[in-house]
Amino acid sequence: MSAPPTPGEIEAIIHRGVPLGAAWGVRVVSANPEEAVLELPHNHELLRPGNTVSGPAIMGLADMAMWAVLLAGSQGRDESLTASMHVNFLRPCGPGPIYATARLIKGQGRSIFGEILVRPSGSEDVAVHVTTGWVRSHRPDAGAA
Amino acid sequence: MSAPPTPGEIEAIIHRGVPLGAAWGVRVVSANPEEAVLELPHNHELLRPGNTVSGPAIMGLADMAMWAVLLAGSQGRDESLTASMHVNFLRPCGPGPIYATARLIKGQGRSIFGEILVRPSGSEDVAVHVTTGWVRSHRPDAGAA
Amino acid sequence: MSAPPTPGEIEAIIHRGVPLGAAWGVRVVSANPEEAVLELPHNHELLRPGNTVSGPAIMGLADMAMWAVLLAGSQGRDESLTASMHVNFLRPCGPGPIYATARLIKGQGRSIFGEILVRPSGSEDVAVHVTTGWVRSHRPDAGAA
Amino acid sequence: MSAPPTPGEIEAIIHRGVPLGAAWGVRVVSANPEEAVLELPHNHELLRPGNTVSGPAIMGLADMAMWAVLLAGSQGRDESLTASMHVNFLRPCGPGPIYATARLIKGQGRSIFGEILVRPSGSEDVAVHVTTGWVRSHRPDAGAA
Repeated sequence: MSAPPTPGEIEAIIHRGVPLGAAWGVRVVSANPEEAVLELPHNHELLRPGNTVSGPAIMGLADMAMWAVLLAGSQGRDESLTASMHVNFLRPCGPGPIYATARLIKGQGRSIFGEILVRPSGSEDVAVHVTTGWVRSHRPDAGAA
Repeated sequence: MSAPPTPGEIEAIIHRGVPLGAAWGVRVVSANPEEAVLELPHNHELLRPGNTVSGPAIMGLADMAMWAVLLAGSQGRDESLTASMHVNFLRPCGPGPIYATARLIKGQGRSIFGEILVRPSGSEDVAVHVTTGWVRSHRPDAGAA
Repeated sequence: MSAPPTPGEIEAIIHRGVPLGAAWGVRVVSANPEEAVLELPHNHELLRPGNTVSGPAIMGLADMAMWAVLLAGSQGRDESLTASMHVNFLRPCGPGPIYATARLIKGQGRSIFGEILVRPSGSEDVAVHVTTGWVRSHRPDAGAA
Repeated sequence: MSAPPTPGEIEAIIHRGVPLGAAWGVRVVSANPEEAVLELPHNHELLRPGNTVSGPAIMGLADMAMWAVLLAGSQGRDESLTASMHVNFLRPCGPGPIYATARLIKGQGRSIFGEILVRPSGSEDVAVHVTTGWVRSHRPDAGAA
């Protein structure tokens, strides 16, 4: 039995799997099978009018944050797919960095459901509230590999 | 009274307002105050495992498509904000190009509601179904400017 | 091979399966495997302040309308379950009767996705926009039984 | 300045405003301006096939639970309206009683956003996860009236 993947290993899987994550410099701050925290650094390219992080960048970060939870719980082998995402923009996020905290609400079975809270740096207020459904798919363990 | 903005003018506004749209080469195929069609070209950077356009790129395209409708109906002056987005991934989109068709369902009043259908090139099947709420905000007409 | 179920037969299945539908007098106006129209009659018990049909009654009607589509496409044998429902209240519905038109957007495979538009009597404007995901489950055909 | 309304007073307002709540015997277990817990008793009329509480009844209970929070924070004067509701059915609820715990995520400003978790009696597992947007509207205090 192998050790759980480190945040850095999960970050590398995300950067390989979703090149946008690498291009944006998304960082995995922490990750375990219940919860993960990801950071999106400040990046002029990701803003929208109002000097605040754009919706697409926030939704991308949220999606990667939920994947980080699933990767942490599957020895990095998770191949589940996002089935739905429901995003509520409650307050502006500011120019970044911003943080997404993802956690599983239902992790058992074929249908997975989770929640992601997005906050600006240094704030406790939720700026963007996300719920998401995923359909589980696992890469069969490759044995000794 | 001025002529309605052309697709190229709306595209320029989107590229200025959302640098991601410029970086991804998003193109406004057509736009009027009821409906707009946007294209996301094939781009290796925007894929996820499975050789298909990633969720964040699709959500970004959908968001820009709804903005194109609002820009077409406001002489390019719209400053409304996305309040919510609800995305259902029904089928893989393929590697691109992909097309988003946005249309208003409720365009009157302070709360706007619309629908965006995303399809791969050459297909009639909806791959991703999106509904979105916006809060209207208009820049007051600057007169002769 | 049997004839498709009539609206009256589908109505009877809904009334048996969901007693609230019987109590509210929900009527199946038409139903085929692509689309169904259901009526919720005026009923003082179903109103909320403002003399308009309450949210719970609207959501109930919408749910039954999607089931009617699935029943029409399965010889009345459908046992699928609602997995998610996303409801946007765009305008008041008035005191009733109100009508829900449900149609499938993705009917193939295990995950079903559809849309329901709710309108007051005599209006073309959508008052409530609903999307819904279902998980398919069929009762095996009991043969001669 | 008056005392905050009691759970019984809030229950009476809900039963008057939403007759379905009275018909179903919905009970306000507790309510403050941050959080409210409501009970839906077992009721054969509210079941669906599988001996479990039906979707419409669950959605109705969730809607009333969020209203209870708003009533608790407005001396019982709240007249806000549900603008959207997003419901995920994660597990069957069983035959009842069931409990809905509503809490505000964003309570300031014109747009309100909250979450409702629905659980069967005696269980910690969330059976139905709901998020909801409301548009605030207050009845001006009628003073001595």
